Amino acid sequence: MRAVVKSAPGIGMDVVDRPIPPVGSRDVLIKVHHAGVCGTDLHIWEWDAWASGRLCPPVTIGHEFAGEIVELGPEAGHEGLFRVGDLVTAEGHIVCGDCVPCRTGNSHLCVRTKIIGVDRDGAFAEFIAMPVSNVMKLNGIPTEIGAIMDPVGNAVHTALEGGSVPGCTALVLGCGPIGCFAVGVLRAAGASLVLASDFNAFRRDLATTMGAHHTFDPASQNVVALVRELTGGQGVDLVCEMSGHPAGHAQAFAAARPGGRVNLLGTPSRTTEVDFARDVIFKGLTLYGVTGRRMYRTWIEMTQFLRAGQLDPRPVITHRFPLEQIADAIAVIKAGQAGKVILEVAS
Amino acid sequence: MRAVVKSAPGIGMDVVDRPIPPVGSRDVLIKVHHAGVCGTDLHIWEWDAWASGRLCPPVTIGHEFAGEIVELGPEAGHEGLFRVGDLVTAEGHIVCGDCVPCRTGNSHLCVRTKIIGVDRDGAFAEFIAMPVSNVMKLNGIPTEIGAIMDPVGNAVHTALEGGSVPGCTALVLGCGPIGCFAVGVLRAAGASLVLASDFNAFRRDLATTMGAHHTFDPASQNVVALVRELTGGQGVDLVCEMSGHPAGHAQAFAAARPGGRVNLLGTPSRTTEVDFARDVIFKGLTLYGVTGRRMYRTWIEMTQFLRAGQLDPRPVITHRFPLEQIADAIAVIKAGQAGKVILEVAS
Amino acid sequence: MRAVVKSAPGIGMDVVDRPIPPVGSRDVLIKVHHAGVCGTDLHIWEWDAWASGRLCPPVTIGHEFAGEIVELGPEAGHEGLFRVGDLVTAEGHIVCGDCVPCRTGNSHLCVRTKIIGVDRDGAFAEFIAMPVSNVMKLNGIPTEIGAIMDPVGNAVHTALEGGSVPGCTALVLGCGPIGCFAVGVLRAAGASLVLASDFNAFRRDLATTMGAHHTFDPASQNVVALVRELTGGQGVDLVCEMSGHPAGHAQAFAAARPGGRVNLLGTPSRTTEVDFARDVIFKGLTLYGVTGRRMYRTWIEMTQFLRAGQLDPRPVITHRFPLEQIADAIAVIKAGQAGKVILEVAS
Amino acid sequence: MRAVVKSAPGIGMDVVDRPIPPVGSRDVLIKVHHAGVCGTDLHIWEWDAWASGRLCPPVTIGHEFAGEIVELGPEAGHEGLFRVGDLVTAEGHIVCGDCVPCRTGNSHLCVRTKIIGVDRDGAFAEFIAMPVSNVMKLNGIPTEIGAIMDPVGNAVHTALEGGSVPGCTALVLGCGPIGCFAVGVLRAAGASLVLASDFNAFRRDLATTMGAHHTFDPASQNVVALVRELTGGQGVDLVCEMSGHPAGHAQAFAAARPGGRVNLLGTPSRTTEVDFARDVIFKGLTLYGVTGRRMYRTWIEMTQFLRAGQLDPRPVITHRFPLEQIADAIAVIKAGQAGKVILEVAS
Repeated sequence: MRAVVKSAPGIGMDVVDRPIPPVGSRDVLIKVHHAGVCGTDLHIWEWDAWASGRLCPPVTIGHEFAGEIVELGPEAGHEGLFRVGDLVTAEGHIVCGDCVPCRTGNSHLCVRTKIIGVDRDGAFAEFIAMPVSNVMKLNGIPTEIGAIMDPVGNAVHTALEGGSVPGCTALVLGCGPIGCFAVGVLRAAGASLVLASDFNAFRRDLATTMGAHHTFDPASQNVVALVRELTGGQGVDLVCEMSGHPAGHAQAFAAARPGGRVNLLGTPSRTTEVDFARDVIFKGLTLYGVTGRRMYRTWIEMTQFLRAGQLDPRPVITHRFPLEQIADAIAVIKAGQAGKVILEVAS
Repeated sequence: MRAVVKSAPGIGMDVVDRPIPPVGSRDVLIKVHHAGVCGTDLHIWEWDAWASGRLCPPVTIGHEFAGEIVELGPEAGHEGLFRVGDLVTAEGHIVCGDCVPCRTGNSHLCVRTKIIGVDRDGAFAEFIAMPVSNVMKLNGIPTEIGAIMDPVGNAVHTALEGGSVPGCTALVLGCGPIGCFAVGVLRAAGASLVLASDFNAFRRDLATTMGAHHTFDPASQNVVALVRELTGGQGVDLVCEMSGHPAGHAQAFAAARPGGRVNLLGTPSRTTEVDFARDVIFKGLTLYGVTGRRMYRTWIEMTQFLRAGQLDPRPVITHRFPLEQIADAIAVIKAGQAGKVILEVAS
Repeated sequence: MRAVVKSAPGIGMDVVDRPIPPVGSRDVLIKVHHAGVCGTDLHIWEWDAWASGRLCPPVTIGHEFAGEIVELGPEAGHEGLFRVGDLVTAEGHIVCGDCVPCRTGNSHLCVRTKIIGVDRDGAFAEFIAMPVSNVMKLNGIPTEIGAIMDPVGNAVHTALEGGSVPGCTALVLGCGPIGCFAVGVLRAAGASLVLASDFNAFRRDLATTMGAHHTFDPASQNVVALVRELTGGQGVDLVCEMSGHPAGHAQAFAAARPGGRVNLLGTPSRTTEVDFARDVIFKGLTLYGVTGRRMYRTWIEMTQFLRAGQLDPRPVITHRFPLEQIADAIAVIKAGQAGKVILEVAS
Repeated sequence: MRAVVKSAPGIGMDVVDRPIPPVGSRDVLIKVHHAGVCGTDLHIWEWDAWASGRLCPPVTIGHEFAGEIVELGPEAGHEGLFRVGDLVTAEGHIVCGDCVPCRTGNSHLCVRTKIIGVDRDGAFAEFIAMPVSNVMKLNGIPTEIGAIMDPVGNAVHTALEGGSVPGCTALVLGCGPIGCFAVGVLRAAGASLVLASDFNAFRRDLATTMGAHHTFDPASQNVVALVRELTGGQGVDLVCEMSGHPAGHAQAFAAARPGGRVNLLGTPSRTTEVDFARDVIFKGLTLYGVTGRRMYRTWIEMTQFLRAGQLDPRPVITHRFPLEQIADAIAVIKAGQAGKVILEVAS
């Protein structure tokens, strides 16, 4: 089969032939239809410090995908839940299931997590074998959307964790694809006011398309002052911090109302100076660090939104390439004028 | 001033002149614009067992209203939160503030609660004096809507209590005004599937107008079977029981999914046989009894929905009468072909 | 190996030789040290309506046990979490892992649940094979305690679900073994006042031994009046209903404070008349039906209590028999003068 | 009456005669028996940047106290809840009651909060007038304990917020009086393992007296490594950060388990460098800033613990002085060899 592989340390990836992966007793083999290209894939392409410290080439890249079940391992078809021909996606974090986090609803924090496309072969290929426990049926959701349920799930986790969204006011800092998805999730979940901020006008337009009531350009506008003005002086109930920048953290703490919440998904590459007294303690704030997706509450919530038509993430998809053009896909992401980029593998 | 008064034990009410009420040091005097007629008012009109055991005539009737502040008691204007001319509504349950329920977020269960229009003079009058602690500013919500925020608040309390509504599936049993409001609240709060049931076709149509995806007639349809069919065999996440009938309870328990929730607002006039083993314990259900509105979380949530235009309860309003025609208002409610009935007092 | 088997429909059980069970790829084989006899086993002995409708003889009985791992299936030793020689117990509900309840933290409500000793061979035997996903290490907890972690877990689930126990007031209705365990759990969890009620003086004494501040005899005392007197007129924050009798339900609803909680574990054999208006709605009560143990939050909490010495369930163990004397074990339970009864299988 | 007064800007306080305060219509006049000296009082004595920016001398100091009601305002005796002769303490944060935080269970974050002894006259005096809404009956709790329920309440808020304490593992960073109270609260609330850390051996001994299982000296011990060792490599479920130092923050984030919680009460005087990626996001941590006490859930929980004898904070009281010796009280606190210091005003 054709696959995008990190063959050796260094910049770039190769499109090569690899054998179809073996199917374990509780695995399903999936023919990939669509796959999503993520910022993580860019790090792997660039072979930055994180990537070179984590990946052991050769490894097939890609962790966002959807496709069709073409084979079931001998113990994977129990109860008839899954059948050949089912269109499915999958949680790309493969966890142990037996540690304390896994046994207390925190599988997304399992220390034995293996991520497809990073720690084992991934989805930028014609076929992928996945443990059946990680597979989710699409039940009518198109594979193009199924292919991006990993990052949409990040947005669902960030938007819904810990507070009651219906009727709330929210600010999304950073309008990359996950930030734009978060705007759509917040609207679907009944938020009354959804604000969004990004330096990039293209991304602000995507956020507006996804339902943001107002967007801000931090280069020319005082985001915190505008948030306060639009919330009767209070600040927002919830900040979804997607930028990963110290400046975003400062805005998040200042824009949240007393007693409010800041859910942090954007991964910073450096430290942030925090005035805990002024910004957290006296304000009674709650901060929460978002990793992955809750298994599988996040997936159930997301599936409901997508099936009911409350959330349509497709406006965020701006580019589509065949598998062989992975270099072009990486290039448009680097250029900064893209939303979500999709690989069309088969259909 | 003109007022609708229960002058003495027995059926009916009188429209009479009464003095404008005195304004306590922490009270505001409100000129009533609109008032809502409630099933409770019907019980008082009919002078049933509950009414005759609770009311001490003469008492001015009415607990749902909105209007304009025309006077502030000397300690009611603190911090400039309220001013003469403000359009407001009010929580009609006046609580002690110092008991254990009041001090732990359960004021709606205060045993010293005095309800306006029941335990003290109410709002079917040109003026009413209210403790400032109970008053809520409308800030742009029309007084016609403000007048029904008491029952809309019942619906908000029932729909939002204890579970996460975004993406959920819900069934509303009983499509009187509060049931219809609950349909609208569930849609505003991001429910993915809202089902509703009532014997009365007029009410089912109102539920559809408010956003129900499907409505059922229990006289001719198997509600539980249809709910299961529409939820992949699971049952719904949440049942809002608004009927107060034993048959509604049975449907509620059967239609909820394992691990689901039944919030009960409809007040039964008799007991229900419950099979706790089959219907509650083996299903892992949670049941919750809804009284009034959470003070004031429910009001804040409702205000957000109304101001953002996510919820418009006005389609449920089917009749409007001047204060003097209280008898006509009661008559249309008794006839069963009404949604919410409003008294237009002033404007 | 020796095993207690329901060989055929009808009263009684047989002690017979059966082959050591086969070990699946993700199973562990456990040499049973101790096993607990449950009320469920009594139903199976008596072959009542429930038992005859559910069991398919021949089946080895017993679902509460602890022992030593003597063999690991080829895929059961992953990551070295479990090794031969480990002392362990196990959750006896074997669930599918892939349905909506399983994927949303409600595995205890999985509709495909197979219970050991009921739906498949159980633990009243020298050896049992269990899926590794259900196995819990004892890490220093004696196997005698390990053998009763199933019913202690029922008590933990009932006592800790849905409210904050520290500082709370609680009433346990029914002082069978699980009721007595619940008393101990509530004390370990920091309840400020633990009350308990049972008709049986022997059981009331066990409840006192486990830490009940006061016990009541409903035959001669007004339980509700005494509860109110001891709680400043309020009623208790939490009722653990372990009796399964309609009279217990009535007491539960009356003894709970406004806004309080009733967690129901006792399985009624008939229906209960409920006055929802007076007892649930106007009181703002929450009712919750308890099935099994939360997987695996309940187990983690229980393990913490047992390892730290905060909870010692052994005073509830009143009788110990060898496996062959299952008939004697059943007889003392039927006589009503027993707490928990243990089978000593090996050591 | 005698009172400790900050008469003018600068270091120190004066013991002077002042008139007995007037009693408002909803106030009670309380004869002070005992009062607690707080770190805040030290800041006021030293007239540091915070104090000089906030206080407007002359102001009577002191916000922790208990005493006897000697007079009721005309509207303060409603329903007979309070009577002359009642022994009481009071929440020292006087809030508006009508803002969004006050109306949604976040009164402790009311922006109009006036603190006694800071923003208005306080409790280091023979008498203090308090709004009846802030007054709490002692009902058998000694006034010496009543006088320190403000800081004990800080500890209750920090220990119980947001997680389930029964069976949990916890680390208290900083063993000043509130840290030592937190140790006692955690034990009362059923924590299975309570660890504590402080540079000061005197304070570590107090923490041990209050029930800490282990204490650490960060000057000579690797706190994080020891915490991991004692928790099976996981880290603790909950960190109560009472030190307010950047080093404490770093230890808190490192010592919390994945998915754990850090509640921050210690007020830092400078900023902290936070590695959000490593310490918060990838660990899935929740951080919460603790201000004051939840009104009045914290008070109810605390009262339960104190009345039931589950918590006795008196071992933390190391010094007692008459009101006139405020200078000596301040001196022992500055010397660092004190736990809680009490003023004996009357009895």
